[in-house]
Amino acid sequence: MREFNGVAGQVDGGRLWRRLMQMAEIGAIPGNGVNRQALSEEDIAARELLIDWARRRGYAVAVDEAANLFVRRPGSEPDLPPVLTGSHMDSQPRGGRFDGIYGVIAGLEAIEALDDAGTATRRPIELVAWTNEEGSRFDPGCMGSMVFSGTAPLERFEDAVDTDGISFGRALSRTLGATPDLPRRRETIPPAAYVEAHIEQGPVLEAAEVTIGAVTGVQGSQRFVVEVDGATAHAGTTPVRGRRDALQAALRAVARLNETMADPNDVLRFTVGRFEVEPNSPNTVPSRVRFSIDLRHPDGWELDRRARRIPRVCENAALPCSVRISRTFDQRPVAFESGIVETIERSAAAIDQPSLRIPSGANHDAAFVAKVSPTAMIFIPCLRGVSHHESEYASPEDCAAGARVLAETVRTLADS
Amino acid sequence: MREFNGVAGQVDGGRLWRRLMQMAEIGAIPGNGVNRQALSEEDIAARELLIDWARRRGYAVAVDEAANLFVRRPGSEPDLPPVLTGSHMDSQPRGGRFDGIYGVIAGLEAIEALDDAGTATRRPIELVAWTNEEGSRFDPGCMGSMVFSGTAPLERFEDAVDTDGISFGRALSRTLGATPDLPRRRETIPPAAYVEAHIEQGPVLEAAEVTIGAVTGVQGSQRFVVEVDGATAHAGTTPVRGRRDALQAALRAVARLNETMADPNDVLRFTVGRFEVEPNSPNTVPSRVRFSIDLRHPDGWELDRRARRIPRVCENAALPCSVRISRTFDQRPVAFESGIVETIERSAAAIDQPSLRIPSGANHDAAFVAKVSPTAMIFIPCLRGVSHHESEYASPEDCAAGARVLAETVRTLADS
Repeated sequence: MREFNGVAGQVDGGRLWRRLMQMAEIGAIPGNGVNRQALSEEDIAARELLIDWARRRGYAVAVDEAANLFVRRPGSEPDLPPVLTGSHMDSQPRGGRFDGIYGVIAGLEAIEALDDAGTATRRPIELVAWTNEEGSRFDPGCMGSMVFSGTAPLERFEDAVDTDGISFGRALSRTLGATPDLPRRRETIPPAAYVEAHIEQGPVLEAAEVTIGAVTGVQGSQRFVVEVDGATAHAGTTPVRGRRDALQAALRAVARLNETMADPNDVLRFTVGRFEVEPNSPNTVPSRVRFSIDLRHPDGWELDRRARRIPRVCENAALPCSVRISRTFDQRPVAFESGIVETIERSAAAIDQPSLRIPSGANHDAAFVAKVSPTAMIFIPCLRGVSHHESEYASPEDCAAGARVLAETVRTLADS
Repeated sequence: MREFNGVAGQVDGGRLWRRLMQMAEIGAIPGNGVNRQALSEEDIAARELLIDWARRRGYAVAVDEAANLFVRRPGSEPDLPPVLTGSHMDSQPRGGRFDGIYGVIAGLEAIEALDDAGTATRRPIELVAWTNEEGSRFDPGCMGSMVFSGTAPLERFEDAVDTDGISFGRALSRTLGATPDLPRRRETIPPAAYVEAHIEQGPVLEAAEVTIGAVTGVQGSQRFVVEVDGATAHAGTTPVRGRRDALQAALRAVARLNETMADPNDVLRFTVGRFEVEPNSPNTVPSRVRFSIDLRHPDGWELDRRARRIPRVCENAALPCSVRISRTFDQRPVAFESGIVETIERSAAAIDQPSLRIPSGANHDAAFVAKVSPTAMIFIPCLRGVSHHESEYASPEDCAAGARVLAETVRTLADS
């Protein structure tokens, strides 16, 4: 067993893992999965458990209007803006035991390690659990961090409804009402820095056999809906040549898009994830197809250059069918603060842990917090890059290593 | 206005059209459509209207165990097997005013024209309305003609349920119970011949500018379900090269099938009508696709030859995804009786109506009756080849022309 000095030496991998497994019981589903969607009974139970852990250790807990939860470890200079760390506790409907919740429990472990090491810091350190990162119950995701960062006012989200017709506003009131004794923060003070630990949700670290990812930013992301209109016809009676088959047209469009989006460096991410056919009957020539395009690249210029080609490529390929295209999402690439990325690298090196600079393929709360504070993220590997699935897995060793680097990083930032 | 002699001269195009429009009121839906699914309230109302028309004219009406409805015009030799004509009265949920019901009303017009012309025939002539040809409410279609022809016993269909959970058996009892005074036929006597008039449901006659199709048979038809299995992955984090994207694999398979099914003569009908993606989420690489293949050709050997290639083509194209294929439907081509096809041609020629020999692309009750009796069909054009749609349309002139040819054909057969 490796011994560590200082704060990293006080990170208790066993305690961290037990807490991860205890949290995973809340909303547990078969196959080791978790269904703990935003503002659900399970989310409320997870919040209560976190509050209990924090209070047992003597930390003050507070909540803001978006039900973002804050746990505060005091600093020697209490008026300084705090260093913020954390992630989210909600999951996908068929999610895993690590996505989001790992960053929250690793953050709690980091501040407890500081106390266990008897280490005071100048700045207060706050642990945050953001509301509704996943967006699976209430669309869009990252509502909590968007409100916190001033990206959007809370009012914009209040009327979002889940599949049962329950509004975000109503679920939010219920969640806030479940912990009526929590002090309510009325104002948001931008933190001195924000560091979020998270599983990678991709295969890069595992393939490189590196435990720590020093995340340089979140790649840009655009989404499109392509609607192809043809004409329905009887599959038995209509000669193939006279058809305006929307499925065949959509297929030609995707094939041409594959060529347009080819990237020798395999950095561009092009995905058709949704594909819906009308009338979707085996003996009827399809009259309409709607498919999605998800396009991501860390470089905003390159992303735009590729995205601009989509309409022309689809229109030409789909002839004689017609095409309508709308862009439903456009997020510019986010570059994290290089000083914090370097702090993460130095913290990893200090405990002899190799690290790798990587961009984040997925979106995170950190992308929004980065608008108001210096920000970066720490990634740890997950098995086969799988997330948003019951089988999502990160090893106890990697979870502990990530928490050690987080604790060192937070300590450094809180003394700066 | 053209004048016709004999039976054709007694076909009343105005009466025929008024009856078509009166029937179209039963189950009328917006856009000139009809929703009159098998054994529904609307189907029962249509049956009652047909029975009323028949009885007003003095024809005997009977029903069999499958609720196939028979209207009998006596012959001078009543013990001879009858000549049968007719079609079905049920429609698709968003169907039109002509598919099926045209053949029933044209058949009634034919026997009334014989009476109006004072023409006796040796054989009785029976008009039939088959139960559940469409198969949209209770799967499969052509239940009535399958039972009549001994293709399947009624018991096989009794447990089929509609989307409300109502069984075919229960709906059948209700329909039979709605006309308790109808004599019930216990035995089926194969008719001397069967002739069914129907809209073409395809574009061939319209393109050829010919009103009468002498239908030579029903092409063979096979259906397959192809299931492509890949692996789900995060659209943002997973490099394109490492993916096992089931949608991309399925699109490659369909593209290769297009090549395999290419037919310079444009006779082979290859259709992918259903295409379903899992999890069908814009930011998730698809893990599974199920798509249908509908393949038809009038030549059974050619149909088999093409169909045999499907598994290999799909498996190779889908790599690295895996493929499972099952054949869900296999109907051999049906050749109609050449003597009856020729009778139709001669009947058309007798009223100076050009005709064209064509195979039927769609399946029909006639394909099952052909197993027990000499059979053929008469097609009339429908606008742009459209059927199974509210906008389905056949002109009054073409409807009358088809009924004239049917009346001449039935008269000839009933005297043979």
